[in-house]
Amino acid sequence: MGLTAASELKLLAGTANLPLANEIAAQLGAKLTTVEVKKFSDGEYNVLIGESVRGKDVFVIQPTSAPVNDNFMELALLIDAARRASAHRVIAVIPYYGYARQDRLIGRSPISAALVASIIENAGADAVVCVDLHSSGIEGFFRVPIDDLSAIWMFAEHFKKKLGKELKNAVIVSPDVGGVKRARNLARLLDVPLTVLDKRRPEPNASEIIHVIGEVSGKTCIIADDMVDTASTLLPAVKSLHAKGAKQVFACASHAVFSGKAFENIAASGVKELIVTNSILLRPGAPKNVTQVSLAPLLSEAIIRIHENRSVSELFFKRNSQGQKTL
Amino acid sequence: MGLTAASELKLLAGTANLPLANEIAAQLGAKLTTVEVKKFSDGEYNVLIGESVRGKDVFVIQPTSAPVNDNFMELALLIDAARRASAHRVIAVIPYYGYARQDRLIGRSPISAALVASIIENAGADAVVCVDLHSSGIEGFFRVPIDDLSAIWMFAEHFKKKLGKELKNAVIVSPDVGGVKRARNLARLLDVPLTVLDKRRPEPNASEIIHVIGEVSGKTCIIADDMVDTASTLLPAVKSLHAKGAKQVFACASHAVFSGKAFENIAASGVKELIVTNSILLRPGAPKNVTQVSLAPLLSEAIIRIHENRSVSELFFKRNSQGQKTL
Amino acid sequence: MGLTAASELKLLAGTANLPLANEIAAQLGAKLTTVEVKKFSDGEYNVLIGESVRGKDVFVIQPTSAPVNDNFMELALLIDAARRASAHRVIAVIPYYGYARQDRLIGRSPISAALVASIIENAGADAVVCVDLHSSGIEGFFRVPIDDLSAIWMFAEHFKKKLGKELKNAVIVSPDVGGVKRARNLARLLDVPLTVLDKRRPEPNASEIIHVIGEVSGKTCIIADDMVDTASTLLPAVKSLHAKGAKQVFACASHAVFSGKAFENIAASGVKELIVTNSILLRPGAPKNVTQVSLAPLLSEAIIRIHENRSVSELFFKRNSQGQKTL
Amino acid sequence: MGLTAASELKLLAGTANLPLANEIAAQLGAKLTTVEVKKFSDGEYNVLIGESVRGKDVFVIQPTSAPVNDNFMELALLIDAARRASAHRVIAVIPYYGYARQDRLIGRSPISAALVASIIENAGADAVVCVDLHSSGIEGFFRVPIDDLSAIWMFAEHFKKKLGKELKNAVIVSPDVGGVKRARNLARLLDVPLTVLDKRRPEPNASEIIHVIGEVSGKTCIIADDMVDTASTLLPAVKSLHAKGAKQVFACASHAVFSGKAFENIAASGVKELIVTNSILLRPGAPKNVTQVSLAPLLSEAIIRIHENRSVSELFFKRNSQGQKTL
Amino acid sequence: MGLTAASELKLLAGTANLPLANEIAAQLGAKLTTVEVKKFSDGEYNVLIGESVRGKDVFVIQPTSAPVNDNFMELALLIDAARRASAHRVIAVIPYYGYARQDRLIGRSPISAALVASIIENAGADAVVCVDLHSSGIEGFFRVPIDDLSAIWMFAEHFKKKLGKELKNAVIVSPDVGGVKRARNLARLLDVPLTVLDKRRPEPNASEIIHVIGEVSGKTCIIADDMVDTASTLLPAVKSLHAKGAKQVFACASHAVFSGKAFENIAASGVKELIVTNSILLRPGAPKNVTQVSLAPLLSEAIIRIHENRSVSELFFKRNSQGQKTL
Amino acid sequence: MGLTAASELKLLAGTANLPLANEIAAQLGAKLTTVEVKKFSDGEYNVLIGESVRGKDVFVIQPTSAPVNDNFMELALLIDAARRASAHRVIAVIPYYGYARQDRLIGRSPISAALVASIIENAGADAVVCVDLHSSGIEGFFRVPIDDLSAIWMFAEHFKKKLGKELKNAVIVSPDVGGVKRARNLARLLDVPLTVLDKRRPEPNASEIIHVIGEVSGKTCIIADDMVDTASTLLPAVKSLHAKGAKQVFACASHAVFSGKAFENIAASGVKELIVTNSILLRPGAPKNVTQVSLAPLLSEAIIRIHENRSVSELFFKRNSQGQKTL
Repeated sequence: MGLTAASELKLLAGTANLPLANEIAAQLGAKLTTVEVKKFSDGEYNVLIGESVRGKDVFVIQPTSAPVNDNFMELALLIDAARRASAHRVIAVIPYYGYARQDRLIGRSPISAALVASIIENAGADAVVCVDLHSSGIEGFFRVPIDDLSAIWMFAEHFKKKLGKELKNAVIVSPDVGGVKRARNLARLLDVPLTVLDKRRPEPNASEIIHVIGEVSGKTCIIADDMVDTASTLLPAVKSLHAKGAKQVFACASHAVFSGKAFENIAASGVKELIVTNSILLRPGAPKNVTQVSLAPLLSEAIIRIHENRSVSELFFKRNSQGQKTL
Repeated sequence: MGLTAASELKLLAGTANLPLANEIAAQLGAKLTTVEVKKFSDGEYNVLIGESVRGKDVFVIQPTSAPVNDNFMELALLIDAARRASAHRVIAVIPYYGYARQDRLIGRSPISAALVASIIENAGADAVVCVDLHSSGIEGFFRVPIDDLSAIWMFAEHFKKKLGKELKNAVIVSPDVGGVKRARNLARLLDVPLTVLDKRRPEPNASEIIHVIGEVSGKTCIIADDMVDTASTLLPAVKSLHAKGAKQVFACASHAVFSGKAFENIAASGVKELIVTNSILLRPGAPKNVTQVSLAPLLSEAIIRIHENRSVSELFFKRNSQGQKTL
Repeated sequence: MGLTAASELKLLAGTANLPLANEIAAQLGAKLTTVEVKKFSDGEYNVLIGESVRGKDVFVIQPTSAPVNDNFMELALLIDAARRASAHRVIAVIPYYGYARQDRLIGRSPISAALVASIIENAGADAVVCVDLHSSGIEGFFRVPIDDLSAIWMFAEHFKKKLGKELKNAVIVSPDVGGVKRARNLARLLDVPLTVLDKRRPEPNASEIIHVIGEVSGKTCIIADDMVDTASTLLPAVKSLHAKGAKQVFACASHAVFSGKAFENIAASGVKELIVTNSILLRPGAPKNVTQVSLAPLLSEAIIRIHENRSVSELFFKRNSQGQKTL
Repeated sequence: MGLTAASELKLLAGTANLPLANEIAAQLGAKLTTVEVKKFSDGEYNVLIGESVRGKDVFVIQPTSAPVNDNFMELALLIDAARRASAHRVIAVIPYYGYARQDRLIGRSPISAALVASIIENAGADAVVCVDLHSSGIEGFFRVPIDDLSAIWMFAEHFKKKLGKELKNAVIVSPDVGGVKRARNLARLLDVPLTVLDKRRPEPNASEIIHVIGEVSGKTCIIADDMVDTASTLLPAVKSLHAKGAKQVFACASHAVFSGKAFENIAASGVKELIVTNSILLRPGAPKNVTQVSLAPLLSEAIIRIHENRSVSELFFKRNSQGQKTL
Repeated sequence: MGLTAASELKLLAGTANLPLANEIAAQLGAKLTTVEVKKFSDGEYNVLIGESVRGKDVFVIQPTSAPVNDNFMELALLIDAARRASAHRVIAVIPYYGYARQDRLIGRSPISAALVASIIENAGADAVVCVDLHSSGIEGFFRVPIDDLSAIWMFAEHFKKKLGKELKNAVIVSPDVGGVKRARNLARLLDVPLTVLDKRRPEPNASEIIHVIGEVSGKTCIIADDMVDTASTLLPAVKSLHAKGAKQVFACASHAVFSGKAFENIAASGVKELIVTNSILLRPGAPKNVTQVSLAPLLSEAIIRIHENRSVSELFFKRNSQGQKTL
Repeated sequence: MGLTAASELKLLAGTANLPLANEIAAQLGAKLTTVEVKKFSDGEYNVLIGESVRGKDVFVIQPTSAPVNDNFMELALLIDAARRASAHRVIAVIPYYGYARQDRLIGRSPISAALVASIIENAGADAVVCVDLHSSGIEGFFRVPIDDLSAIWMFAEHFKKKLGKELKNAVIVSPDVGGVKRARNLARLLDVPLTVLDKRRPEPNASEIIHVIGEVSGKTCIIADDMVDTASTLLPAVKSLHAKGAKQVFACASHAVFSGKAFENIAASGVKELIVTNSILLRPGAPKNVTQVSLAPLLSEAIIRIHENRSVSELFFKRNSQGQKTL
């Protein structure tokens, strides 16, 4: 898989997740291109690409995780610099796409995920690589080609090994109505039933009650979500499942946002294991039941295929008889 | 509500749903602007606006229902003509948005809903009005302001009157995992539980089986969807609910696409009543259990508010404590 | 001329004229790329490219003949799909360009030919190949490079062989004042005189009278046009020429639109032969005096030259001393 | 017709045709807005608008006649300045549109008329007003609204008065095949026959011969063209007509480019009268048989109607039964 | 100056400098429009405009001071929200423009100030108001109208009052070669001489030496700069002037960035007084010799003039005989 | 350095400076691509590229020197032609960039340098090469990559050789406050002090007085500027320096605009030598103390590096410890 000497691929990494970028480089047998990113005392970034990228395929690796505005601006500046330095193509590799949840109008709101897409494109990205986008609508916010990879196969593989025969007793749980499709995909992959949690506030100021739609009693539950932010959804979800007689509760989520009291909430939830990817750099102190799998093999394979103009989709998707991407 | 003599509002209607356009005009006490649309024998449209629209607010009313490509091109040509005729603003009023279901990549597909949005915008639309868009991502496919109105209050009102006390025994059913959010909104409005149907194909060539997630036995079921196309989803859904002991099954859907064998399927399904809007012109021969409510009051109110620069959202939405649009 | 194994050329065909596309592919020793185009019962197209086109030169072959709006939308969706699938370049090959006659403002009309150009460009076409565009202004409606090929040499060759010495007794006839330039080009190629038909309506509701400007008595007349649509121009043109003493009347036109009563009109006109190209798929039942010549050699040669970055113009044009394209 | 005190119309004039701009201002009872245009010794223009145009309708009056590149750049700079000074709308009034004849590809040429259109639009023009554009395709080169006015009614009126009963013996002559449509329009307006001149070069280095298609012997000929540049087309045209027995030859052309040896050629041609407009400032020394009619009434009426959002087309066009603009 | 009830002006403030926004509102007799800006624990902003802005002139007041990336993203989101909420015009009022110093290529760098401009414009700003832009090139980075106001008159006024007759003994000092133009403008306004400091590093690793170009001995020096960031330029500048015999040293700067050790450096510098504006919210603890003047009168006057389409420039600039903005 | 046979580089030259273009071609061992540029008698250019440039790297060499509007339009037309002829990349090589001094708003002015940039980009330039741009802001007016080369090393080399030991007694003089940065760069390169001239008009109608800021008595002065236009700045500058006791005065400037009375002024100024480049074609009659150095080696090296995707910056710049381009 490694790169030949004649290769024109350049890997640029922002500062948001250097360990992941280094892992990708190692997979590709390549070195990260020298980039100086200084942050001045007034908060402005100063970005400088240290080697010629003229005529090269430049992949800029930067998840827009917290601090999201800083990381996002750094990404945009790197893209601008690469374009102005005459890169052949600039491909933004954004393992975690910040602001993805603001993907539609809620009253007089911005559509932040669309604004972010247009900024990335205007800065000069010729293509985009993402992982498990919160919302499939974001693909259409871009005009340039986008590859939305998925960690779902890794999670399926993980639970097959982990649960063995107990898998037959398992059920996939969508923690809210917005994520049912995502949960259904994992349920299909593992060929197990689906359950949905529906939060309702009985009266304006009363606290939310969680309705469990479907059967979980005596079951091994696997909550499937795309991200765990403060874990304030995960905590009551696990508790509700236990209250309804669940045997044990696992969880998986592509993006470990882990902001605010996430660590406390995960620890307090009683979830047996929470498996996540390294799209976002894990800050120290994570509970022991958090397991991380690396996106580096997936991303490096996508990068080399894009660079060599080979199919990306054939690796990751099969298509069912309705012509839809399946697992 | 009617227009004053000094008003600069112009209503242009394509040929896709003239009865609805006329109803809107009647609500506004206005006349439709003269438009000649000829279709030549080779299928090309010839469009001509018959009155000056210079400096006017031009609302072009045209659902892009079947024949979708014809109706869509007619819409684009009308917008182009209005822009070139120096309209002040051109607002596309699209009660039914064709190609809305093609809202994301499925392998090497187009994102047709995004292409359509960019064509409407490039033709010259300064704003867009829609009803119950299949996908909220479409809002972000537009750069211009968009108002996505909803028929959900009408449906809630309808079932409150219809069911009376039986409402307490009702359950809202999402006919598939993709529409759970939409069904949940109606469930919240009516304060009743939610149930989800999950289709699965046990083996590659076996036929699909419908899993009912949640309880429906002895219940009055209301299937909530955004559109009924061939009714090939509705038919087995109703049958599954009856098989699981449902007392009776109602259904509501904003858009009556009713293509192919829709009429036969609706009749055969055993649904007690299917309530739809007139976003799409109903072709003759609809089963008797199909009820139509008119969007004209909603659309005419939105049009006059847009024309007069008064808030559209305040009429139609309340916001809950999470800042989200609610019913 | 055939393609080498290493070639990165991909031929995609829409459904408007598959025989022509297959002929082009055969000329190039290539296969058409697998494309699935489904038309749903509500008229929406569902387009899927079956092979990777990443980094490839993708030629999308689709005349926008009748049903023009369907064929046009299919073309736009194919281009969008190819662009989003990371094609290197997308070249729209449009042997017949629908809406070409709506190329300027007629009162408060759209400029449909310009709208169509901007849609093709916005969908993602990097270049365009056409044949005998109705209006040269369309070249300027595009910002991307466009090659407007011509069938005129084939027609000239045809009549040279057909008429032999009688060519000296021939005259080229422009069937209306809008097409004089086109007719003049053929007249120059064959070195024969030019005649113009001028239609006039003597009074508002009287029927049109055709004035023959120039001499046709005893002559072999060749009517030269770019397209024959309903043939309602051709019929009276031939009759007028005969009335003025023409010996015999031939006709040539690049595009055989043949809509409405075209077949009846051609048969009734008394034209000895009407020669057309296969830019548009001929529907069955054409009169026997219609002769078709294939554009496949011309288009396949242009495609391979574009793909290999070799001059297209040098093949097809000579330049006269005024620097204009000549025959 | 004059402007009220509260009016927000601003007339800016470039230096290309100040007398016409002043005449327009006089018609409107307005003053030209102060504009300083300096030309430095290195040829750079320095443009400064002397009054606030914030929120105003700014009409920039400037034909792009010779020196075309200077006048064109001055126009673009004025538009840029008005846009940056926060004009409400900037309308480019371009009585003569330079580079209009370069409206299509001739080998590896630019499409200069399209480039010029895109520059005007990018500089910030919100609308354009022209007179007798050489090519109707130019309308489609603009995305912003364009009004292409015509002097043809003035010419028709002129010849009706001038010729009286002799009009029945008149024939309109198109001086080349490219201008037949234009000539036909005047022929229809005056209800007289049409004749076409067709230039041919019998052999590569031989001189051109003019074929007169149609009958002119004993006729009063009126050559109709859109512009007279060097008059090297007019001269042999008039001579050919006289050689074919024409009784007398008149000519009309909207734009008096009159470059090179125009004056000598007009004088030598034997044309009885050449009527033109003042779209271009007439340099001194024009032959006596050149008559000028003023565009100021037409342009000032168009300007006031645009400013007040009243129909422009209703004044100048009637539509025939085929829906085409007629005279 | 206050607003009438019928006014359609809306003032939106981001969170970067609410006191300034409130002061502007007070000057205008208006209230700030309700805006909710939440910052989630992962750093994402959630923005919601609380009142209808449909058809209104919306001024978004937000300096992009530290934390620059947060404040900048908040600004972009507010503009996006206002545009999507159908504002008539969105005017970005940016009293301090972050990233202004990154205004050109330094090796393979971005041009951050241009990227920022394009983001603001793409988000939907129709016009921009700034104060003492670091670089005049930034005006040209915008395509939309921009008004770059200046605090220089306030500073001139301040020193006239402060120094009285001593003004005749004063000299303006540019602290580096990049700011000479700015210093010259103040020198002209006060009619006093100009001095320039030129920093040089005699050898690669030696510390910089400051050359004082011009005479300062016995003089009252006024250092004129556009911003004071860490004051690491100010400190040695004051010291050098004192070393060269300056009688006393004052300083003025429009933007009080005051990051890092700014307070310590100002205190240690020995500058008698540093006068700044409130473009940036002053954090507590500023040295006592820092004086702040308010931009509220200047900005509120500009806002009301823009809203009412009255000249902005006439208030703030005079023009000299060379047509240049002068003081 | 010469080109290999397989090379796809094409050099197109406009007519503004053919000797320089030929010199560049000679350096590259290449021939200029055949281009026909005719100027019609009405001033319109007619441009035709004589060879296929399909898929080629096309470098269009044209300084936009006087007559600036003609030369600029010729450049834009050449770029448009190359883009429409399917060039792979079009790189505008503009050794002298006209309108560069109009780089910011001066009252209600255009920003001509930005307008010019947007026209070049819209015409189709994919990259730009310039020399010693008057204003670094212009880099940001372009969105495409730009390389701003410099003649400063050549000037430094020249004066090192010329002055020898006298260099220690030299001082660099900025002729006005706007050019101090440029002068400082040369001062650093030569390691000599800096002096600034500050023009002031003591009273509105009085003549300007030049203040010499810094010490020049007994010194060898080198005035450093980017261009000499009419030399009306140079003349008094040299005189002032002599009046202040300068030993001798040299001058250097990248661009020899030399308009108006430049030759007389240079001759009258008493400058010992004025060294310039050949970015602009020198008209005959230049004073003998004008020395020209050729940009051909610099430009040809940049062209070949751009063509071969090798670093341009590494050749021409070193970076100092502050990360800034140095000499």
